[in-house]
Amino acid sequence: MTVNSIIAKKRDRGVLSIDELRFIITAYSNGELPDYQMSAFLMAAYLCGMDSRETAALTQVMLESGGQIDLSDIPGPKIDKHSTGGVGDKVSLILAPLMAASGIRVPMISGRSLGHTGGTLDKLESIPGFRTSLTAREFHDQVRDIGVAMMGQTDDIVPADKKIYALRDSTATIASIPLITASILSKKIASGIDGLVMDVKTGRGAFMSQPEQAEALARSIISTAGLHQLPAVALITDMSQPLGYAAGNWLEVREVLQALQGHGPEDLMLVTYALGVQMLFLAGFQGTTRQAAATLKHAISNGTAFQLFLKMTAAQGGDVKALQDPGSIHRAILEQHIRANASGFVAEVDALTIGECIVQLGGGRTRLSDTIDYAAGIVLHKKIGDAVQKGELLAVIHANQPQTAKAVTPLVRGAFKISPDPVAKPKLILKIVRGRGRT
Amino acid sequence: MTVNSIIAKKRDRGVLSIDELRFIITAYSNGELPDYQMSAFLMAAYLCGMDSRETAALTQVMLESGGQIDLSDIPGPKIDKHSTGGVGDKVSLILAPLMAASGIRVPMISGRSLGHTGGTLDKLESIPGFRTSLTAREFHDQVRDIGVAMMGQTDDIVPADKKIYALRDSTATIASIPLITASILSKKIASGIDGLVMDVKTGRGAFMSQPEQAEALARSIISTAGLHQLPAVALITDMSQPLGYAAGNWLEVREVLQALQGHGPEDLMLVTYALGVQMLFLAGFQGTTRQAAATLKHAISNGTAFQLFLKMTAAQGGDVKALQDPGSIHRAILEQHIRANASGFVAEVDALTIGECIVQLGGGRTRLSDTIDYAAGIVLHKKIGDAVQKGELLAVIHANQPQTAKAVTPLVRGAFKISPDPVAKPKLILKIVRGRGRT
Repeated sequence: MTVNSIIAKKRDRGVLSIDELRFIITAYSNGELPDYQMSAFLMAAYLCGMDSRETAALTQVMLESGGQIDLSDIPGPKIDKHSTGGVGDKVSLILAPLMAASGIRVPMISGRSLGHTGGTLDKLESIPGFRTSLTAREFHDQVRDIGVAMMGQTDDIVPADKKIYALRDSTATIASIPLITASILSKKIASGIDGLVMDVKTGRGAFMSQPEQAEALARSIISTAGLHQLPAVALITDMSQPLGYAAGNWLEVREVLQALQGHGPEDLMLVTYALGVQMLFLAGFQGTTRQAAATLKHAISNGTAFQLFLKMTAAQGGDVKALQDPGSIHRAILEQHIRANASGFVAEVDALTIGECIVQLGGGRTRLSDTIDYAAGIVLHKKIGDAVQKGELLAVIHANQPQTAKAVTPLVRGAFKISPDPVAKPKLILKIVRGRGRT
Repeated sequence: MTVNSIIAKKRDRGVLSIDELRFIITAYSNGELPDYQMSAFLMAAYLCGMDSRETAALTQVMLESGGQIDLSDIPGPKIDKHSTGGVGDKVSLILAPLMAASGIRVPMISGRSLGHTGGTLDKLESIPGFRTSLTAREFHDQVRDIGVAMMGQTDDIVPADKKIYALRDSTATIASIPLITASILSKKIASGIDGLVMDVKTGRGAFMSQPEQAEALARSIISTAGLHQLPAVALITDMSQPLGYAAGNWLEVREVLQALQGHGPEDLMLVTYALGVQMLFLAGFQGTTRQAAATLKHAISNGTAFQLFLKMTAAQGGDVKALQDPGSIHRAILEQHIRANASGFVAEVDALTIGECIVQLGGGRTRLSDTIDYAAGIVLHKKIGDAVQKGELLAVIHANQPQTAKAVTPLVRGAFKISPDPVAKPKLILKIVRGRGRT
């Protein structure tokens, strides 16, 4: 077995064995395989694909590159939710405490923003003092004691993924279904969960902009999870426009606080509850969908979800006072109002443009080393389907750099399309993808 | 323009502009682009291909990575022949002096053996003292004064190719038609020639084992040469069995000496003359094919081709005395006879197996850094179509390592297939590929 022959086999659309995948991934993870051979392999995998057994084998050998978190001594099901990323997608911050308040343990390992999509860790870190670097022990104990912990990937969890992801980022090999599948699932399996709900975003603001791509990714993740005996279900959800009204780290935390106190935007809560219901079912909930949703709504209305968010924040070093008076920090020095130049109905709020504008405003990253301006962002005042009068407010840009605010103003305005005719609100939950009886 | 966007464009089967190709090739050649981005690009190019204009543009930007040899002050047409490589393919050593003896100048830049295929430079260097590293000045002057010079690539000629070829070799991206085309033609154009005859080999012992692949490569080279105003023609020739009887560096030189003295094997001379006739036509020869062939045969029979080979050898520091008594040097310590174990007709002499056995015997390379045993090789005594009696000699292995000789003996025997029924000799010249009126 040589590296060249393995690359050539994938290049010729051959199906690699787990031994071949282990050979190449282990050698790369150990520093024995040069980047240039790995990137040729990744491009071959991108273009020639991998079948479900290969993807499961790749997941397995990536998993083997590091350690695993053992949560098996904690009673009850440990269920996680993972999103493929979008604009204004602050669901994790609501859902994690909400599920813990509903009796499910949520050990959540999240990522950072990159490109136009936001990242849960950055949103959490906009809370002063909030630590997202926990040890496996701290993570374990917090899941046991509070029911929920949210952190970033540790150095020990799937180190091969960190190295491979950086290489994919600079070799145009990110958007590969088997590579995304193995990257996500190896980390999820390593985190010691008993079930996974995937939120696969589709539309302009998602990595998988076409619904067919999103469905293919969802099916790949679900079937690979099945081969790894991880119960999983995927929702394909709309990311044509930002989710909720706020996009930008601290602005989103403020929207999360409202949502946890019963005042969340309708679309945001609909997606949150839909994902939460699936998490309940994975945990063994025996009632109907309506009963599951009622359980979740109750945990919001009685304040336990909000209390759990505060408790988790305190446990991870975050400033709970800042959450009680969120207007007191991260205030941008200027707010630029965008108003409608015609009357009609909002037909489009391009999530990709909004996401890219936030990056320009300093609220996101183009490289993992970029620092983030937590105050920067955009708050929408109108969304698709809303009636609008000429001169009415469409959005507010929050910025600390007047030049950049000026530069993105026409872009944000251009993200809105106004139609003279009524427009239907987009369907939010496009599809549910389940495994074929395997758990 | 970013490297990532160029890689992504090729990955998505886009057609790259010359500016995009220049950007990536120049950056790589200058050491600004890391190997891992180049190898991802090469794999994308391998799998997604390039159209003829892209291939011509790639050839152009590779050419621009170095200098060019200017032979324009030398009167008369300068014509080269290039083979894609095979086993026992010693045609260049016969053809170069033969064409010079026929009044055409031949500035030939050749390569080394790699894998199962032999290399002209190694064969020449088996002549004691023969220098294949000439300066551009020496090369120019020798072409002017003697009419023929044979050397390796200088550091100044297409340095990008050297770097890219090494990377392709370790990333399974060698066998790509556009990449091969640009690699060959950039070097040929840089060498200052006025016309090129390509010998594209096909069959078990060739890189392009299938005739359709070989034809596709021939068409790519001819059309790309046309876009570069380089008159060119390609013959597709058989490499199912070794060419001639000898394979292995010094053994082949000995066969060359016989051929130049009028005693060459029929198949070897047929291919040599067919290529030489095309070189004559590219140089403006006005007669018929039969007349062109007669011109070449005359240069053999009157001894001028042989004298030119000696003259070139002397000019490049080679030991002419060794050529006059070739049995006196590079004698292998053992000769292993392979005899037929059945009577019948030879149906197959697998060139790939023979080539690989020679590499094992030390007569070839698996890496460019390997040293070569010039004495090692295999001399065939029977070829496809020949009648054979049980016990008759099929081949002789020439080896300096008894263990290896023993190891390859069954393989060499296995390369021969004997049929009870008569077998036709393979057709040698399968096709001629010309441009479409462009010169």
